[in-house]
Formats: sequence, structure tokens, C-alpha cells
Amino acid sequence: MKKAKSRDYDARFERGMKVLKRMGRGKLMLNQKALSEDMYDMSVGHLFGDVWGRPGLSLRDRQLVTLAANIAMARPTGNHSHYLSSMHLGITQREIIEVMIQVGHYTGWPTLSNAVRQFTEILEEQKEAEKAKKLGKPFKSKLL
Amino acid sequence: MKKAKSRDYDARFERGMKVLKRMGRGKLMLNQKALSEDMYDMSVGHLFGDVWGRPGLSLRDRQLVTLAANIAMARPTGNHSHYLSSMHLGITQREIIEVMIQVGHYTGWPTLSNAVRQFTEILEEQKEAEKAKKLGKPFKSKLL
Amino acid sequence: MKKAKSRDYDARFERGMKVLKRMGRGKLMLNQKALSEDMYDMSVGHLFGDVWGRPGLSLRDRQLVTLAANIAMARPTGNHSHYLSSMHLGITQREIIEVMIQVGHYTGWPTLSNAVRQFTEILEEQKEAEKAKKLGKPFKSKLL
Amino acid sequence: MKKAKSRDYDARFERGMKVLKRMGRGKLMLNQKALSEDMYDMSVGHLFGDVWGRPGLSLRDRQLVTLAANIAMARPTGNHSHYLSSMHLGITQREIIEVMIQVGHYTGWPTLSNAVRQFTEILEEQKEAEKAKKLGKPFKSKLL
Amino acid sequence: MKKAKSRDYDARFERGMKVLKRMGRGKLMLNQKALSEDMYDMSVGHLFGDVWGRPGLSLRDRQLVTLAANIAMARPTGNHSHYLSSMHLGITQREIIEVMIQVGHYTGWPTLSNAVRQFTEILEEQKEAEKAKKLGKPFKSKLL
Amino acid sequence: MKKAKSRDYDARFERGMKVLKRMGRGKLMLNQKALSEDMYDMSVGHLFGDVWGRPGLSLRDRQLVTLAANIAMARPTGNHSHYLSSMHLGITQREIIEVMIQVGHYTGWPTLSNAVRQFTEILEEQKEAEKAKKLGKPFKSKLL
Repeated sequence: MKKAKSRDYDARFERGMKVLKRMGRGKLMLNQKALSEDMYDMSVGHLFGDVWGRPGLSLRDRQLVTLAANIAMARPTGNHSHYLSSMHLGITQREIIEVMIQVGHYTGWPTLSNAVRQFTEILEEQKEAEKAKKLGKPFKSKLL
Repeated sequence: MKKAKSRDYDARFERGMKVLKRMGRGKLMLNQKALSEDMYDMSVGHLFGDVWGRPGLSLRDRQLVTLAANIAMARPTGNHSHYLSSMHLGITQREIIEVMIQVGHYTGWPTLSNAVRQFTEILEEQKEAEKAKKLGKPFKSKLL
Repeated sequence: MKKAKSRDYDARFERGMKVLKRMGRGKLMLNQKALSEDMYDMSVGHLFGDVWGRPGLSLRDRQLVTLAANIAMARPTGNHSHYLSSMHLGITQREIIEVMIQVGHYTGWPTLSNAVRQFTEILEEQKEAEKAKKLGKPFKSKLL
Repeated sequence: MKKAKSRDYDARFERGMKVLKRMGRGKLMLNQKALSEDMYDMSVGHLFGDVWGRPGLSLRDRQLVTLAANIAMARPTGNHSHYLSSMHLGITQREIIEVMIQVGHYTGWPTLSNAVRQFTEILEEQKEAEKAKKLGKPFKSKLL
Repeated sequence: MKKAKSRDYDARFERGMKVLKRMGRGKLMLNQKALSEDMYDMSVGHLFGDVWGRPGLSLRDRQLVTLAANIAMARPTGNHSHYLSSMHLGITQREIIEVMIQVGHYTGWPTLSNAVRQFTEILEEQKEAEKAKKLGKPFKSKLL
Repeated sequence: MKKAKSRDYDARFERGMKVLKRMGRGKLMLNQKALSEDMYDMSVGHLFGDVWGRPGLSLRDRQLVTLAANIAMARPTGNHSHYLSSMHLGITQREIIEVMIQVGHYTGWPTLSNAVRQFTEILEEQKEAEKAKKLGKPFKSKLL
């Protein structure tokens, strides 16, 4: 898709990458990239550049409401990375747990259980990653 | 259900009412009350007293994530009152619009449209309510 | 669609109508009939004849789980009639309210609110219908 | 939001308006515009300009899959306009009804009922609009 | 959270544990407990003590409608345990299959497929558990 | 269930099998068959025979809207096979990716991510299957 590769799309892509780095998630969505460059450009350029990069709401608040929406929808994949970026942006584990309890009452107990399972998986992988790091071994996430 | 009317449930109910007043929504859920006193007690005592009243996350943040979850689910009723309590808690119109844009990208454009329609209805009713007040006329919401 | 009008489809349609009558809902889904005879035949013959008419689960239990599924999904229309058929099949108001409370905890408080609103609308319409009947006036439901 | 008003955004907006006109829906989303110019620009420029305007899938096919997704989600508002643009793009009433039957089996009978209700409302409004036109009277949709 | 550890919360927790035992699920939700004691207390005390423990609907009926709501929502986790407690409460395999067929028509064929997969996984694990028991080996569920 | 095994159900079953073969999916839903013959008969006879086999919409269009509905719902299982039958029916990879982008904007970015993951899994399994074939080894899908 030549059209999207205009100078302007490049600027949006760059803005998106900046936001992704502030969130600690520069290397994500690579399966999108492998399947379709256009889709990846749209995710970085539009979703992160033009939406997440908007003024009017702090990055922490955007992360909070995104976490909430994803816990609400309880989709099988796609929310794991948001627990990581939440913590990267300074949202505490306690706050994440409170978001689960709060949202769970508006979208049902199984969305709470699903969030518990996904967040626990992320915390366990973090421990494995640290262990691997100490031992100088490589670590590849199975969740992201 | 006598059991629920224990001294303890009363304390939770009272805590819930305090939270509801801070949110500017003391007079809601009256159709619940009319249908089932137990359900109403549970909504006030458990949902507002024990959940919304928890420490660990500010009331503003609880409102933000609840607004997000409700915009995400796009249910026909039940979210109108949260636009009002959001504004009562100091969340600006601009911030509410940003929540819609942000969440809408995670749950789909029609959830954005639905939120626009519901928020617009609330803003229009507020104008009518003010007009009625100036004229000394009673006003009854059709949305809450 | 001639094919569907085979002798066999007729038998299923007849079975479906029998089930619908036991549920007190013989005159429903007429907007489907107006839009597409095929769709109506499928609703009566397959959904009510072949599914609701199956052995292995009582009609009361089929109604209970259908009510639960519909409260869970909180769709804007389509559940009103199930409150009526529930009561027609002997499920009490108290039991319906308990289903709401139970399901609401698995699918979120707004599904509870939505169910309260829809059930209240049905109960109010029933009163209007009775009033109309006493006065010998016709009554047409706005909900079904 | 000055940034979005860059020369590039204008080009996307223009592309979006062209697509909207081909779909016969130039005058929609005006409540979005009234609430937030930015959101409206994003709907026209990104959703219609950059997404609907993409090559790789015909406009008819984009409309078919959008109609399907919206019937699936059964949201209270937002799908009415897609019945109109479907017909504008040459998708027949019969085909729309087949989409309902097909999708309804993957997302549940109440999504079928909901679609029937919404499509019927649109067809009835079309008749009213034609009647008004013959009488030289103005007509304002309550659904769009 | 000291507050929740009041004498009253203890009573609710105890009531919840009694209900859980009647359902044959005393040892569940331990990942919740590991992540947040408060959340676990709320699940046992409120959800099982105050909701499942309510009068007005039999435990079997509460289980039936919960199973239905969970099949309807088709969430990736959280329903497996309900097949077990259903059978523990005397709901037969045949009845469970009928619930799937019935609910599947109201929420879509893929919710039926999802339920088939989850129920099959549970039945297979039961066989493995029995085999392990005969051999005097330990067995740990991967599903609960 | 003797009744369903009537001569007519046999005809529907046969029609369903014909449609399934045209879609390249003759050997699916075998876990349904293992759990309940009735359910399997209904899936083949009603869903594929009576619904997919209807005139009024091409098989390609039925596949497109089904793919869209399934991407929209983002259920954990049940959509993998539809990527395969889409390709079997001549829908190109590029078109499938465009359906994802289009539908993703109506149902949220995580439904896009979920579709990317599921489609990637299918494409990777196809490669493994081809490799196994070359080596004369058996291959069993973990996804279908």
C-alpha cells in the first residue's frame, strides 16, 4: 500500500514509536508486522501515534481506562502486555488489583477470574525472566 | 430476607450511601428498590459500600475505569448516570470525550457512537433541567 | 424458498407452535414473519420445534437457562417476552429476581440494572393491559 | 487539537468524505461533530478515509462484513445507517435478510431479532420519508 | 484491609465456605488468594456466602443459570469448574448437554463449540484423575 | 433421540455434508459427535444443511460474513477452521487481512490482535502439515 507510506504516515509512525517506548513496549505486535506491514503501520501510527499520543488525558489515565476496557471484554489474548505497560507507567500492583475488583463488578466475576489468571501469568513470567537474566540465559515470553 | 438486615449490613449500607452522596447520586436505583429491597440493599451496601468504598484507588480513578468498562460493554442502559457522577467528581467533558476515543479503539467504533449518543442525551437533559429550574418547574429525568 | 415448505418442515412448525402455546407466546415474532416467512418458519420450526421441544430438560429449566443467557447478553430487545413466558410456566417473580441477582454477579451489575428495567417495563405493561381489559379497551404491547 | 488539522489530515478527511458519498451517507455522525470536532475528523479521516478507503477488498464486501460485525454485537445504536448504505451499494433486501440468518446462527437468535427490529424500523422510516417527500413536507430521521 | 476482617465478614466467609463445600469446590480460587486476600475473601464471603447462599432459588437452579450465563459469555477461563459442581449437585451429563444446545441457540454456535471443548476437557481430566488415583499417583488439574 | 433420526433429518444431514465438503471441512466437529450425536446431527443438518445451504447469498459471501461475525466475537475457539474454509473457497490471504482490519475497527483492536494470532497459528500449522506430508509423516491439528 504505497499511499499509506506517505511522508505523513511516517510522522505518525514515529510519534507512535515514541509513545510505545514511554510505555516500555517497543518490541510488540511483531506477529502483526509479519502478517501485514500495513496493519502494523496502522497500529503504531494510528493507534499509538494518533490516539494514545493525544493530549487531553494523561498517559497513566489512558492506560487505566484501556486496562479496564480489556478486563471488561475478557478476550483470550491482547491484555497481557497492558499489565506490563501499566507497571512501567507507575501504576502499582495494588492499583491493578483494585481495577480488577472494580471492573469485575461491572462486567462479571469471570472477567475478574480471567484477569487474575492473566496477571498471575505475567508476574510469573517476570520472575522467570529475572532468573534467566541472572543466569545469563535468553528469555522469550510466551504471552506477548 | 431478614438475614441481610443484620447490624453489619446496615453499616455497609450506610457506607454505601456516603459514597453515593460524594458521587452526587443519592437518589438512583429506585426502580431496583421498588422491585426488590434485597437487591437495592446489595447494590448500595456491597457495590457502593464494599467495592467503591475500598481504599487503594482514588474515587476519581474508580469512576474513570467504571466509565471505561461501561462504554466498552455498550449496554442499552446503566451508563447514563456515570457521565453525571464523572462530572460531579471533577472529570472534565474533554476528559470524558478522550475516554470515549481511547476505549472506542479497544472495543469498536459503534461503542464510541453509542457513548456519544448517551453523553449527548445527558448533556441535553441537563440543559432542560436548568431551564425547568429557572422557571420553577419540576423536572424528571427519562434517562436515570 | 419452496424447499423449506416440505412436508417435514410443516411437522416441525406444528411442533414449534405447540411449544409456543404451552409457553403462552403464540402470537410473537410477527415482525419476523412480516420481513421474511423463511426466517419465521425457522424460528418456529427449528428453534421452538426442534430445540425447545427436545426431551432431556424440562420446559421450566429450558426457560430458566434462556432467561439467564438473555440477562447475561443484555441485548436491547428480545428478552421482554421471556419474563412473560417464565411467569406463564410457573416461575415466580421472586425466582426471576433471584436469577437476576445470580446472573448479574457473573455478567456485571449493569446487566442486573438492564434486567430490572426490562422486567419492570413488563410488569407495568401487564397492569395497563389489565386496566384496558376491565374498561373493554384494546391493548397493544410496545415491548413485544 | 491543532496537530490533527495538518495538511495531511485534510487529505484523509477528503478521502473519507468521498467514500461516505459513494455509500450515500454524507450527512451522518453529526452528533459526533457537535460533541467533538476531533472525534468527527477521526471518524471521517481515519475510519472512512484510511480504513473503508483501502484497496484489497471491494466496498460491497467491506459493507457486508461491517453489517455482519454489527449484527453480531447487537449494540443498541449504530447499525441502522448500515442497512441504508448496504442498499445504496446494491446489496438486496433478500441478501440482508440472509446475512441476518447466517450471522444469527453464530451469535444467537436474539441478535437476529434485534436485527429484524432495526431493519424493520429503517424500512418503515423510508416509507414515511417518501410519503413526506410526496407531500412536500420535511422529514427528519429518528434513527440516524 | 483490616475493615473487611470484621466479625461480620468472617460470618459471611464461613457461610460461603459451607456453600462451596456443598458444591464440591472447597479448594478453588487459590490463585485469587495468592494475588489478593481481599479479593478471595470477597469471592468466598460475598459471591458464595451472600449470593449463592441466598434463599428463594434452589442451589441446583442457581447452578443451572450460572452455567448458562457462563456458556453464553464464552470466556476463555472460569467455566470449567462449573461443569464439575453441576455434576456434583446432581445435574446429569445429558442435562448439561441440553443446556449447551439451548443456550447455544441464544448466544451462537461458537459458544456451543466452546462449551463442548471445555466440557470435554473436564471429562478427560476426570478420567486421568481416576487413573492416577488407582495408581496411587498425585493428580493436579490444569484447568481449574 | 429417535425423533431426530427421521427420514427428513437424514436428508438435511446429507445436504449439510455436501456443503461441508464444498468448504473443505468434512472431518470437523468430531468432539461434538463424541459428546452428543444429536448435537452433531443438528450442527451438520441444521447449521450446514439448512442455513449454509440456503439460496439467496453465495457460499463465499456466507463465509465472509461468518468470518466477520467470529472475528467480532473473539471467542477463544471456533474460528480457526473458518480461515481454512475461507481459503478453500477462494478468499485470498490479502482479503482475509482486510476483513480483520475492517471488522477490527467495529469491534476493537484486541479483536484484530486475536484474529492475527489465530490466523498466524493456522498458517504455521499449514506449513507443518506440508512438511509432515513431504516426509510421509502423519499430522494432527491442535487447533481444529
